[in-house]
Amino acid sequence: MCVEVIHLFVQASLAYRFSQPAEVLLLIEAARTRSQSVSREELQIISTDGVARLDDLHTGERRAVFTAIGDVDVLYSAAVQLTRTPLHLSGVKATPIRSLPPEALNYLLPSRYCPSDRFCGFVEQQFGALAGGDKIQAMLDWLWTNIDYRRGVSDGRSTALDTFTERAGVCRDFSHLAITFCRAANIPARAVSAYAWKLDPPDMHAVAEVYVGGRWQLIDPTGRAPVEGLVRVATGRDAGDIAFMTVFGEAELIAQTFAVTELRKRPA
Amino acid sequence: MCVEVIHLFVQASLAYRFSQPAEVLLLIEAARTRSQSVSREELQIISTDGVARLDDLHTGERRAVFTAIGDVDVLYSAAVQLTRTPLHLSGVKATPIRSLPPEALNYLLPSRYCPSDRFCGFVEQQFGALAGGDKIQAMLDWLWTNIDYRRGVSDGRSTALDTFTERAGVCRDFSHLAITFCRAANIPARAVSAYAWKLDPPDMHAVAEVYVGGRWQLIDPTGRAPVEGLVRVATGRDAGDIAFMTVFGEAELIAQTFAVTELRKRPA
Amino acid sequence: MCVEVIHLFVQASLAYRFSQPAEVLLLIEAARTRSQSVSREELQIISTDGVARLDDLHTGERRAVFTAIGDVDVLYSAAVQLTRTPLHLSGVKATPIRSLPPEALNYLLPSRYCPSDRFCGFVEQQFGALAGGDKIQAMLDWLWTNIDYRRGVSDGRSTALDTFTERAGVCRDFSHLAITFCRAANIPARAVSAYAWKLDPPDMHAVAEVYVGGRWQLIDPTGRAPVEGLVRVATGRDAGDIAFMTVFGEAELIAQTFAVTELRKRPA
Amino acid sequence: MCVEVIHLFVQASLAYRFSQPAEVLLLIEAARTRSQSVSREELQIISTDGVARLDDLHTGERRAVFTAIGDVDVLYSAAVQLTRTPLHLSGVKATPIRSLPPEALNYLLPSRYCPSDRFCGFVEQQFGALAGGDKIQAMLDWLWTNIDYRRGVSDGRSTALDTFTERAGVCRDFSHLAITFCRAANIPARAVSAYAWKLDPPDMHAVAEVYVGGRWQLIDPTGRAPVEGLVRVATGRDAGDIAFMTVFGEAELIAQTFAVTELRKRPA
Repeated sequence: MCVEVIHLFVQASLAYRFSQPAEVLLLIEAARTRSQSVSREELQIISTDGVARLDDLHTGERRAVFTAIGDVDVLYSAAVQLTRTPLHLSGVKATPIRSLPPEALNYLLPSRYCPSDRFCGFVEQQFGALAGGDKIQAMLDWLWTNIDYRRGVSDGRSTALDTFTERAGVCRDFSHLAITFCRAANIPARAVSAYAWKLDPPDMHAVAEVYVGGRWQLIDPTGRAPVEGLVRVATGRDAGDIAFMTVFGEAELIAQTFAVTELRKRPA
Repeated sequence: MCVEVIHLFVQASLAYRFSQPAEVLLLIEAARTRSQSVSREELQIISTDGVARLDDLHTGERRAVFTAIGDVDVLYSAAVQLTRTPLHLSGVKATPIRSLPPEALNYLLPSRYCPSDRFCGFVEQQFGALAGGDKIQAMLDWLWTNIDYRRGVSDGRSTALDTFTERAGVCRDFSHLAITFCRAANIPARAVSAYAWKLDPPDMHAVAEVYVGGRWQLIDPTGRAPVEGLVRVATGRDAGDIAFMTVFGEAELIAQTFAVTELRKRPA
Repeated sequence: MCVEVIHLFVQASLAYRFSQPAEVLLLIEAARTRSQSVSREELQIISTDGVARLDDLHTGERRAVFTAIGDVDVLYSAAVQLTRTPLHLSGVKATPIRSLPPEALNYLLPSRYCPSDRFCGFVEQQFGALAGGDKIQAMLDWLWTNIDYRRGVSDGRSTALDTFTERAGVCRDFSHLAITFCRAANIPARAVSAYAWKLDPPDMHAVAEVYVGGRWQLIDPTGRAPVEGLVRVATGRDAGDIAFMTVFGEAELIAQTFAVTELRKRPA
Repeated sequence: MCVEVIHLFVQASLAYRFSQPAEVLLLIEAARTRSQSVSREELQIISTDGVARLDDLHTGERRAVFTAIGDVDVLYSAAVQLTRTPLHLSGVKATPIRSLPPEALNYLLPSRYCPSDRFCGFVEQQFGALAGGDKIQAMLDWLWTNIDYRRGVSDGRSTALDTFTERAGVCRDFSHLAITFCRAANIPARAVSAYAWKLDPPDMHAVAEVYVGGRWQLIDPTGRAPVEGLVRVATGRDAGDIAFMTVFGEAELIAQTFAVTELRKRPA
C-alpha cells in the first residue's frame, strides 16, 4: 500500500457569549497519533484565566477545559502532517470479534444515536450476502443513493432512526447511519470529528472509522471530503462524544469558522 | 363494480384470570355497518353480574364493559352477512383533503404507533411518483417484498419505526407500517380489527382501511386474508384503539381462540 | 350550581407565507356547543379561491380547509356567549368506566404526547389515596408546585415525559401532563384549544377537559386563565389533534395575534 | 480513613443453549484493580475449542470471547481480596470538571439508558441547593423513598425515564436513575457490574460509581448490598456496556447462578 503524506494548516475560530459562568470542554485540537503529527500549534482563549488540559494520553485526543464568562473567543491553528494509509475496502476481510483489539469492543455496541440493535433486520436483508470491506462499501453506496445531503431536516437530537426514515441529513446523520449499519453487522464503527481538506463549505466534519482488515480505517459517509485529508480531532461512540464544544451550562453562538489549507504540494 | 355477498359465522372464546377486580372493555363483537349485517349474535361473559354497553351509534362499533374477578370466560358468536364492494386501487384517484368526509381528517395525522411525520422523506423518495390507488398498491407491494411475516420480533410497544428497521413483524406491524406510509402521503388511513375468513392460523386480525377514490376501502397489508371476508370489529388510529380487550388493571391470559366459517356457498 | 353567562369577542389574525401550494386545515373558529353560542362570526382568508368546510356536526367543531399559496392572511372574529357550569372538583365522585358516555372511552387511552401507560407507578404513588375530583385537584396542585411555566424548554415534539423531567413548559406541556396523569388514573381526559379570556399575553390556549362527576369539565392546568372564560375551538387526544393550523406541506410564520375582549359586564 | 480488607470467594455458573454458532463476549471475571486482588481464579467454558482474551490492561477489566454452539456451560470462581476505602459522602466536596481525570469526562455525558440531559430541570429543582457528596446522598435517599424494588416492571430496554415514571425497578434501573441524576448535576457517574457480598437473592449486581471528593466511589443505589463487599467485574456508561454476556447472535438461557462467600472473618 502506498502511503500518502499531506501537509495541512487547520484553523478554527469560535465566538460565543455566556450570560452565566460555565465550564467548557473543548475538543478542537488535532489529535496526536501515529499517522498525524502536529506542529506550530496555537490555542488562544480570549479571555480566560486558565485552561486545564485533560488530554487522553492513550488515544492522543486533546481536551481543554476552561471557565467561560461573557464574550469568549477561541482561536486555534496548527500545521498537521498526515501519513495516511489509503482507504482499502474492496475484498478486505472482516476481522473476527475474537481478533479485535480490546478497545474496539465498545464500538460493536449500540449507542444513543446509533441504535444498531434495531437495524439487524434491515442490514441482514440488504447487505447480508456480503462481508468485510465489500459490505462496508455497499453500505456507503446505499447511503449515497438513498440519503440526501440537506440541512434543516435534522438537529442535535436526531438518531440514525430519524435519518433512515427522513432519507436526508447532514454529516452527523450520515456518519450515524453508517456506524449503525456497521455495528448491526458486527463491524466495529466509531464517530470521528475532523478538519476536512477540500470540504465545501468548510466546517468541522463528522466522519466514521471502521475496523476491517485488521485496522481502523476512516470513511466519509457523506463522500464530500477525501479521507486522506481528514485531520482527526476527537473519537467516540457517536456525536455525543465528539462535540467540539460541550458547555456545562448555557451559551449563545455568535460566529464560528473553520478552514483547512494545503501547505505543500505533494509530489506528482 | 360487482358486489359480493358472503355469509360467515364468527366465534371467539377468551379465558382470562383476574387476581384483582378490574374493569374490562371488550371490542370483540361484529360492528353494525351498512355493508355488514349481524344476526344470531350471542355474547356470554361467565361469570359477571352485568355488562354495560358503550356502543358507538355513529360508527356501529360495539363495546361491552364489565367487572372481571377470578376466572372469566368470554364466548361470542354471530352470523354476519357481508356486502362488500371489492377492493379497487388500480388507477383510482386520490381524494383531495378538502373533499374528505370530516371524520377522515383525524386519520391523516400521526399517532402513537404510526409516526407518519417521520416518514415523509422515505415515502416521497420511494412512492413520490405515484398517486391515489396506484400509490397505495405500490406501498403494499413494497411491504410484501421487504417485510417478513414473523412472530417474536415485535411486541405491544413496537411502532412503525421498529418494523421499518426490523423488516419483520405480525399483522399489527404490517398494518401500522401501511397506515404510516399512507398518512405520510396525505392519504387517510386507519386501523381495523376484524374476524378474517381464511386466515391461517385463525386469529383476530389487524388490517387497515384507506380513503381513496371517494370511499373507505379495507386492505390487508399482510396479504394473508381476502378483504371481502373481513368482519369489522373496531376502528381506530392504530392498535392502541382497537385492542379486543382492554383491562384497566391486570389479567393473565389462559387461552383464546377465534374462528370464522363460511355459512353458505356463494353462487358461482 | 349557579351558571355564569359571559359575553366575549374573540379575534385572531394569522399571516403565513407558502412557497409551494399547500392544503391547510384551520381549527380556529369557536365550536358550536350547548354551552357556547356564536354570533357575528367572520372568517376571511386572503386570498384563496375557496374554502371547504369539514365541520364536525356531532361535536360542533368547526374546520376550514383551503389551498394556500404565497402570502396568506387569515382573519377571524366572533361574538361568543358562554353559559358555563363552574368547575366543581372538591368531593366530586369519579365516574365508573361502565357509566361513561361512549365517546369518552378513547380519552382513557394513551396517546402520542400523553403516554399515560408509563405513568401508572408515579400516579398511584403520588395520588393513589385520592379519588374523583379531589384526585384531579391534587394533580393540578402538584403541577402548580412542581412545573414552571417557561418558554424555550419544550417544542412541538415534547411529550408529557419530557415535561415531567424538565419540570418546565408552556400551556401545551401543562395540559399534556395533566391529561397523562388523569388517564393513568382511569379518568378520561382530553385536550382542548381555546380562546382564553384574561390570558396574558393573549394566545391560543391549550387546556384540558376531564370527565368527572358525570360530565366533562374544563380545567386550565397552567392556572393562567379562568375556565369560565374559555372559548372552545377544537377537542382531541392531545396537541396533535387540535393545532389551529395544520399545513400539509410547508409554511413560514410571518405574524399571528389572538385577542379576547369582554363584551358586556356580568351583573355583580 | 480506615481501610477494610475483605476476603471473598465468588462463583458463577451459566448454562445457555445456542441453536446457531455465535460469538460470545463474557464479562464475568473479577477485574484486576489496585483495591481488588484476585487469586485461585478459574474460568471453564464447556465446551469450546478456544477462548480469546480481550482484557483491558488500563482498567483491569477482564474479557473473554469464545464461539458458542449447542449447550454451553460457563463456570467461574475466584478468591478476591478487597481493600476498600469506605464510602464517604457527607460533606465531601464536588470535584470541578477541570480537575477530573481525563477518563472521567465521558461519564459526564448522557448515554442511551441514562439520558441525563433530559433531567436537568428535575435535578436542579430537587437537589439544586446541595453539592458534592451531600447532593449524592440526597439522590440516594430520594431513590430509596420513591422507587420500589420490584421485578417485572422493567426490561432490557427500560431507560432512566421509564424508572422515573414507573417508580419501580430492579438494580439495573436504580443504578441508571442514580447515574442519570448525577450526570445531570455534572457529577461523573458510571455503571459497574459486581459480585455482591450479602446480596439476597444472590445475583450479578448492577451498581454505580461516582467521582466525588477527588476519587471514584462505589455506591449501591438499591441499598441492598454493602459497598465494601462489591467485587467489580465491568465498568461502563450504562447497562449496555457491562452485560456479563453479550451474544452476537441468539442464545437461550437454561440456568444461571451466582454466589459470594466470605473466606475469612475480618478482625473485630
